[in-house]
Amino acid sequence: MTTPSGGHAENKGANVENGGGRGGDERVPVGVVGTGGMGGMHAMCLHRKVAGAKVVAVSDVDAERAGKVAGDCGGAVVFGDAVEMIRDESVEAVVIASPDPTHAGLVLECLRIGKPVMCEKPLATSPGEALGIVEAEVDLGRRLVQVGFMRRYDPQHVDVKRTVDSGHIGRPVLFKGWHRNQRIPPGTDSEGVIVNSGIHDLDSARWMLGEEIEEVFVRGLNTSGSSGGELDLQLIQLSFSGNCLGIIEVNVDAGFGYEVGVEVVGERGTAYTAPPTGAIVRLQNSYAQNVETDWLERFETAYTVELQNWIESIYRGRPGGPDAWDGYASLVAAEACIASIRSGRPEAVATPERPALYAGEATGVAG
Amino acid sequence: MTTPSGGHAENKGANVENGGGRGGDERVPVGVVGTGGMGGMHAMCLHRKVAGAKVVAVSDVDAERAGKVAGDCGGAVVFGDAVEMIRDESVEAVVIASPDPTHAGLVLECLRIGKPVMCEKPLATSPGEALGIVEAEVDLGRRLVQVGFMRRYDPQHVDVKRTVDSGHIGRPVLFKGWHRNQRIPPGTDSEGVIVNSGIHDLDSARWMLGEEIEEVFVRGLNTSGSSGGELDLQLIQLSFSGNCLGIIEVNVDAGFGYEVGVEVVGERGTAYTAPPTGAIVRLQNSYAQNVETDWLERFETAYTVELQNWIESIYRGRPGGPDAWDGYASLVAAEACIASIRSGRPEAVATPERPALYAGEATGVAG
Amino acid sequence: MTTPSGGHAENKGANVENGGGRGGDERVPVGVVGTGGMGGMHAMCLHRKVAGAKVVAVSDVDAERAGKVAGDCGGAVVFGDAVEMIRDESVEAVVIASPDPTHAGLVLECLRIGKPVMCEKPLATSPGEALGIVEAEVDLGRRLVQVGFMRRYDPQHVDVKRTVDSGHIGRPVLFKGWHRNQRIPPGTDSEGVIVNSGIHDLDSARWMLGEEIEEVFVRGLNTSGSSGGELDLQLIQLSFSGNCLGIIEVNVDAGFGYEVGVEVVGERGTAYTAPPTGAIVRLQNSYAQNVETDWLERFETAYTVELQNWIESIYRGRPGGPDAWDGYASLVAAEACIASIRSGRPEAVATPERPALYAGEATGVAG
Amino acid sequence: MTTPSGGHAENKGANVENGGGRGGDERVPVGVVGTGGMGGMHAMCLHRKVAGAKVVAVSDVDAERAGKVAGDCGGAVVFGDAVEMIRDESVEAVVIASPDPTHAGLVLECLRIGKPVMCEKPLATSPGEALGIVEAEVDLGRRLVQVGFMRRYDPQHVDVKRTVDSGHIGRPVLFKGWHRNQRIPPGTDSEGVIVNSGIHDLDSARWMLGEEIEEVFVRGLNTSGSSGGELDLQLIQLSFSGNCLGIIEVNVDAGFGYEVGVEVVGERGTAYTAPPTGAIVRLQNSYAQNVETDWLERFETAYTVELQNWIESIYRGRPGGPDAWDGYASLVAAEACIASIRSGRPEAVATPERPALYAGEATGVAG
Repeated sequence: MTTPSGGHAENKGANVENGGGRGGDERVPVGVVGTGGMGGMHAMCLHRKVAGAKVVAVSDVDAERAGKVAGDCGGAVVFGDAVEMIRDESVEAVVIASPDPTHAGLVLECLRIGKPVMCEKPLATSPGEALGIVEAEVDLGRRLVQVGFMRRYDPQHVDVKRTVDSGHIGRPVLFKGWHRNQRIPPGTDSEGVIVNSGIHDLDSARWMLGEEIEEVFVRGLNTSGSSGGELDLQLIQLSFSGNCLGIIEVNVDAGFGYEVGVEVVGERGTAYTAPPTGAIVRLQNSYAQNVETDWLERFETAYTVELQNWIESIYRGRPGGPDAWDGYASLVAAEACIASIRSGRPEAVATPERPALYAGEATGVAG
Repeated sequence: MTTPSGGHAENKGANVENGGGRGGDERVPVGVVGTGGMGGMHAMCLHRKVAGAKVVAVSDVDAERAGKVAGDCGGAVVFGDAVEMIRDESVEAVVIASPDPTHAGLVLECLRIGKPVMCEKPLATSPGEALGIVEAEVDLGRRLVQVGFMRRYDPQHVDVKRTVDSGHIGRPVLFKGWHRNQRIPPGTDSEGVIVNSGIHDLDSARWMLGEEIEEVFVRGLNTSGSSGGELDLQLIQLSFSGNCLGIIEVNVDAGFGYEVGVEVVGERGTAYTAPPTGAIVRLQNSYAQNVETDWLERFETAYTVELQNWIESIYRGRPGGPDAWDGYASLVAAEACIASIRSGRPEAVATPERPALYAGEATGVAG
Repeated sequence: MTTPSGGHAENKGANVENGGGRGGDERVPVGVVGTGGMGGMHAMCLHRKVAGAKVVAVSDVDAERAGKVAGDCGGAVVFGDAVEMIRDESVEAVVIASPDPTHAGLVLECLRIGKPVMCEKPLATSPGEALGIVEAEVDLGRRLVQVGFMRRYDPQHVDVKRTVDSGHIGRPVLFKGWHRNQRIPPGTDSEGVIVNSGIHDLDSARWMLGEEIEEVFVRGLNTSGSSGGELDLQLIQLSFSGNCLGIIEVNVDAGFGYEVGVEVVGERGTAYTAPPTGAIVRLQNSYAQNVETDWLERFETAYTVELQNWIESIYRGRPGGPDAWDGYASLVAAEACIASIRSGRPEAVATPERPALYAGEATGVAG
Repeated sequence: MTTPSGGHAENKGANVENGGGRGGDERVPVGVVGTGGMGGMHAMCLHRKVAGAKVVAVSDVDAERAGKVAGDCGGAVVFGDAVEMIRDESVEAVVIASPDPTHAGLVLECLRIGKPVMCEKPLATSPGEALGIVEAEVDLGRRLVQVGFMRRYDPQHVDVKRTVDSGHIGRPVLFKGWHRNQRIPPGTDSEGVIVNSGIHDLDSARWMLGEEIEEVFVRGLNTSGSSGGELDLQLIQLSFSGNCLGIIEVNVDAGFGYEVGVEVVGERGTAYTAPPTGAIVRLQNSYAQNVETDWLERFETAYTVELQNWIESIYRGRPGGPDAWDGYASLVAAEACIASIRSGRPEAVATPERPALYAGEATGVAG
């Protein structure tokens, strides 16, 4: 039997349209920008766990670590310049995991030449920059950008979202999120806590409730005793369009490990992520499970599914997952949080109307 | 940068030796025997989630369902005859998921022509048949057979095994396993409960304790009220070499869902698989999580990692995971369980000496 | 052997001083004001589960239900007038469980004649009224008032408090409380939600952190769809003296049952109340535990220990547990919450200096 | 209102019949035999937590510790001779917590003079001795003996039992029990493990399933490495009348703490005791709860409810809880376990017909 009628192959046309010439069974050739912790992880994940992808190129200003990642991925070509790599005709899709300030420019380059791009959060360093990406995509008339809000692919988050969407708990009315890192990275200030860490939670809240944030109120503490006095523990209270509330604990110096969880309270019930799933160990008068030490460990599955789904969306020619609008809206909310830290008062979040391009699927359950 | 120094490519020699001519970056062409529930699942998993594999052929006596699976996998070739497919030069590695009585013969065919094979459990329908495979491999002088004891790749089981191996709980002295299916498949008799279901638990006990079973005592009940009176609930008490004990509940008509768990008690502590990991939902005076309905759902991740590791072991040229000896030893213990059901008494398990070929790694943590 | 050297008897002097003439082994004769749900429960608890107490009198305007409770308690005397009962010389200690507006006046009567009193929350209906009680006690120079914040006796809350006090999790920096009732009682308005329900959480936060509340910010929703539009879901953000934060969910129409929990985040770790403790039941693809339907069921043990400790404190002549100051300070914070609901802004909480009478033990772990 | 119509008083007649002359509101005067760990705990529990009891006498050969307990209980009289105390007319009900070999004789003395007695397990040191008590009670024609199987009063066990009795999980078909002590007491041999520890589990299994044990098979290990080689870990497989099975792990040198749990598997579902209920603490990459160190801590509530219900049963004149038959039947099963240890084979349990006196209530849910 030789009729290749299903799966990847059926979207061959879309692929031709996107990048040209690749057969239905061929792997998508991907270029990865940045080969540090996140970029290296994405590259290895594409190489070892994503069936339809092939890492053909990596770029980094650090040639040595780029070379190592390229080798580990079975011999990708190394570029010193990200734009050159993005433009290279061997590359059909791009993953961006370089430093934050480079994100917006590289994403715009991908849009300019019509290549699908999966960009790590934050999409940009300001709402204005992100709005530029949204406008470019709207002009293009199709979505090519996915933002790396990987929690949308975490099985435990997905299960909560499915429960919410099932209607069993009634209309969702309250989002509760907690986000704890073991140690604050050196040099992070109060605003960095929002833009680098809290932005995940702002997106998570928007996704879980399916509403935009309308007001934020932030109170914070310095718990590490550091001289900078940065607010490493922040409590962000949210009001949403559609008559919902939210509360987020961002705690980037929690000491005991890494932990992320959410609860969504509905009018009839509530749903939340389960406690740890590792082996239960009883030793020395204790009943214990391990807590992960960082996000790479905690969200290993989420990162894999994120990339699997992204590659599938390229085969299907139908973008999915968190999009440029999500990247933009989360930055608008983050900016309001920063304003609230400065003013000590609740601050309104001025999110414009969502363009029609981003209606529907994009905020639904991933995959 | 173009130095393909790492990952799959470094074992190119081994691959050439195993199957000839395939470059380091090429996917392993796999043929899948059987396209029913298990076979179809394995084929789709290889196609969508295993980076280094390519399903090039499937075989089944049912051409229609084979054709559907072939199409879903991007256009594999369909064979009506499994042996013909195994021998086809397009196929370099084989997955066997056809009915149990065919397993041993097809595995021997793979051994005869030197192709790596991942065979669903049970490896054979009798210890004698399985011993034939062990002897053939020993004659060959290298391991090509992996048996589908997927629990060894389940993150929760792996975490318990790691805890045991860490030494924290002291010498392991007691294995406790529970294995519950929603409904007994029609036509299953008391012996089939052992050979089809309990065999997983017998392997799990051997793996967790790192010891062979020396005595079994089985008591059972018919709880379904079926006219056949088959023992759908069996309680298997085990004694091991190395002074350990074990108890297994095999309950194939439990009614409420599918569930598998293990606990290993050590001299200083105990470790066990965690409760369900899905969203916690509070509704109508209840605090609840879903229980999976079958093994495909419960062990989805395990099946994926099993195949990823199998493909990696082919690239590396170093077999891993449960091997022919594990397939054989579990059948020897199963046979003793059946004898105990018949006699109503404890029965000795006569496992011969393990050949040197199977020393070491094979009973360690997978991956 | 006849040396009554321990336990109750050693505080005989204190008892004589408090009420006169009662021997060390005699039970404390208690009068209970109010024989509705709470009052009846307290009376029966004293009768059946508190070894050193004897319910000698009850009072209620409803003679019939008072008579029933009196009979169930082994034949207590029934009074129609609470003040008359409080003054009766047969009564040495008083429990107040009558409607909220009567609390302050009856407590003052107890203070006037020097009888220990356990008053249900709230201590009064306004901070001013409660301050009057505090001032009367300060004038008296000794503490006779205990307030019915029973969570301080709940084993799960006590275990969290002990963990905090142990120092293991470092300085406590964040309190998180959730408080869910199945249905809002008819006639409750937004302010009643604070004064009747949220007041427990305000006390709990003060107790857990050992600090006073300095600022509150409240956002709320009507989730029941009732015509009154009362805010049955309130999210209260707190700032504390001593550089701590807090967040409370008060959700009095949660639909699914009754639930109260707390988490205290410290600088090095976090501690929280465990999930339900009832039998785990697996049925129909579900893993479930029951959720209690109301506070009487959830806090049955806490109510018992509360009264046992209160009676013990009378024997010992050393008051313990939540005191008049706690009753007052919680009302001051509640008033600020109501102001925040009205203003839509954060509001400062103006708690005066704590009198020396209330230093120390009173805010420690009960019992 | 002065009509003492309810509660304790309504059974005044029964009390008069049992002991004579005590009014409905008076506390039951109790004598406690043995003032070691268990006896002292029972005495203090009666004194502080059981509303209707008064410890009037204690007896012990160790006058000093007896004197201390008597003092702590508010001045009980101390006896050096247990029989003298039992016969003393100031004592109306007896708790026996002296060494095991004294139990049967003291219980028979209570029966002889018609006083209710709560005897710690085991009821006797042999089935024959226990049968003598059963026969004496049958001759007397009424039940005066309760046996200290306190698990029947543990809230978590009671919740499992209620679930079983509700019928929701279908007919119970399998009992699973685990019982772990931190360290084996010096001088305990393999048989002592059964008679002192396992006897609780044998009673628990009988109670949960409502059936008698018909066959046992025991395998054991020495895990402590002690020179005596006693089997400190025993795995007891059970077959019951009524077509049920059971498995018990008795592990008296588990090292990590004290733990008791049960699961009852029914034809449609399963129910089991919940994990620890103490505060969850996250520290140093761990999610942990404390495990109790001994039975006094783990079963504190159960011991209290046991005595509260025992005193209530005296007021009511209707015995409840585990009775002499339960004490006897558990010893018969224990004897068979010992025989199985010796023979290495399954052994039949020859329990005679249950006398009519013990029909019904006694094996139901306590309280």
